[in-house]
Amino acid sequence: MTDRPVIALDVMGGDIGPAVVIAAAEVAQQRYPKLLFRLYGDQALIAAELVRAPRVTANSVIVHTAEVVLGTDKPSQAIRRGRATSMGLAVMSVKDGEAMAAVSAGNTGALMAMSKLMLRTMDGIDRPALAALLPTLKSDSVVLDLGANTECDAENLVQFAVMGAAFARDVLGLARPRVALLNIGEEELKGTDELKEAAALLRAVDLPMAFEGFVEGDKIGRGDVDVIVTDGFSGNIALKTAEGTGRLVTGLLAEAFRSSWLTRLGYLLSRGALRALGRHLDPNNHNGAVFLGLNGVIVKSHGSANVRGFANAIGVAHDLIADNITRRISDDLANFRAHRPAVLPADPASA
Amino acid sequence: MTDRPVIALDVMGGDIGPAVVIAAAEVAQQRYPKLLFRLYGDQALIAAELVRAPRVTANSVIVHTAEVVLGTDKPSQAIRRGRATSMGLAVMSVKDGEAMAAVSAGNTGALMAMSKLMLRTMDGIDRPALAALLPTLKSDSVVLDLGANTECDAENLVQFAVMGAAFARDVLGLARPRVALLNIGEEELKGTDELKEAAALLRAVDLPMAFEGFVEGDKIGRGDVDVIVTDGFSGNIALKTAEGTGRLVTGLLAEAFRSSWLTRLGYLLSRGALRALGRHLDPNNHNGAVFLGLNGVIVKSHGSANVRGFANAIGVAHDLIADNITRRISDDLANFRAHRPAVLPADPASA
Repeated sequence: MTDRPVIALDVMGGDIGPAVVIAAAEVAQQRYPKLLFRLYGDQALIAAELVRAPRVTANSVIVHTAEVVLGTDKPSQAIRRGRATSMGLAVMSVKDGEAMAAVSAGNTGALMAMSKLMLRTMDGIDRPALAALLPTLKSDSVVLDLGANTECDAENLVQFAVMGAAFARDVLGLARPRVALLNIGEEELKGTDELKEAAALLRAVDLPMAFEGFVEGDKIGRGDVDVIVTDGFSGNIALKTAEGTGRLVTGLLAEAFRSSWLTRLGYLLSRGALRALGRHLDPNNHNGAVFLGLNGVIVKSHGSANVRGFANAIGVAHDLIADNITRRISDDLANFRAHRPAVLPADPASA
Repeated sequence: MTDRPVIALDVMGGDIGPAVVIAAAEVAQQRYPKLLFRLYGDQALIAAELVRAPRVTANSVIVHTAEVVLGTDKPSQAIRRGRATSMGLAVMSVKDGEAMAAVSAGNTGALMAMSKLMLRTMDGIDRPALAALLPTLKSDSVVLDLGANTECDAENLVQFAVMGAAFARDVLGLARPRVALLNIGEEELKGTDELKEAAALLRAVDLPMAFEGFVEGDKIGRGDVDVIVTDGFSGNIALKTAEGTGRLVTGLLAEAFRSSWLTRLGYLLSRGALRALGRHLDPNNHNGAVFLGLNGVIVKSHGSANVRGFANAIGVAHDLIADNITRRISDDLANFRAHRPAVLPADPASA
């Protein structure tokens, strides 16, 4: 045993391959010198990359795996072959206590299914949620669930709020994050019954968060709240729509700058600032989504992250281990259960 | 009676007031010289604006109304006072055949409730849907429902697809619009049962559209399909998220240009092209959402539209009248009902 944080890396997951994963681990090890890695994947490919990664070489063990979860695998297929794959073994190492977290850029559905099967959900959590940071005009905001659960009831949403607040305290360093439910209006009578019930529960209990009621989708980009809670269907629609709109505007912008010699010159003069803008919006700078609510820390990187992006995903895993996110969430949930009002229509069927 | 198109205008609706509405009507009358208007609102305020609008003066009648639907009115309040308000009387004129369409920048919920109550839904339509044009990298796309119906079943979604395709044929001038359902993945097994069932129905029948299955939210900005169909909850989340992200990127862009003398100069040189980009994204150039599925054409303008924006909303009403959208939708629905497969689980309860 060691008091150094151990992170398991699925070296084969996603479109990025061993070159990006190992180079990113080198960056992360420099940033957090106590980090140890368990590298799951093809031994020969990993060894070839370690030549350029002395810090990782000195602070890791390789676990050879011949099989890989493909992007096209269904979750059921991935589970069947799970224990022979780099992704499955990385997750299993968290279950077995060999690692404190696992990071994979592989197939999201497969990672979710295997993590849920191997690690199980925490006491008091019915379903894990996928949480990530999105850029705003101010700092970043946490948004969850981003697609793990298509349909959610009020209890699920309350659990997501508790987990999202704990995540924001760790990753954004906030003492009392502002939390809101995503809805189609800010008035109390808007939205589905599930949302109204979740809002009533969150208003009634004292948790380490400031519950701010409902927000609409246009607030996601403004940064007026720190945690935005929604079901996985709406969360995925919002995330993808934001990505698409970002690409639409930057695509039109590139077209605008190409339109004449004058605008090309204008671009050259503004280039530095425009690149800084591009960096702020670059998904690699917000990389590292987390499955919250499991008995263990599982971080999902974008499948096409670059070295900086995957290093950031490792950084997220590092922060969540350091702050003991799993413990924080279970404390908050216990606190919520102890203080939840008995009179609220928590279960409409019993009302 | 006349063969000239008559459009009722709620002169008092929204934040914009008579000055913008009458000036916009003047622009629209110039664009479509056959247009006649019925102007609903405060006679003195309208008369004061008509001084600067000779075309509208010569081609309109004023119907004085003392009451106004407020932005804060609940739909139920609006309905109670409905027939005395400028919005209610404008809608009623469509019901009575005095006008062929009504345009209002007022309270969306109130306009929806009054339109549904007074005009009723068309045969074969269970619920009206709010449809609008959104900018893309190519042309515009139709998106519906944008918030009229929080929850929808498969039949509702199919009806929205039929109505959205008819709308796209009229407003975008397409013979065979590409139609897709908004989902959290493009594979057939993704999403809710309602979505899967709606997709099966749309695949099985031959309608004047090319059904392209599922699309994710990032496709909204790309323009790969012409009509995107979704329930009102997700549609509203997507619309608002797109607006918020647009403002996020343009806000960061403005900041980037202000960052130094060099970037300020760069902005000056690029200004023309950047303004053209701004115009492409300006909601005023996509103004005019429509409640589809009613026995009559009701167009909703942004509450804060400018003259060009409200004139565009009147233009949408004009096009829908000219193309007889109500007839088109009912023909398509009859065609769908005649050819829908009997074997599909259209009603899961009977399966």
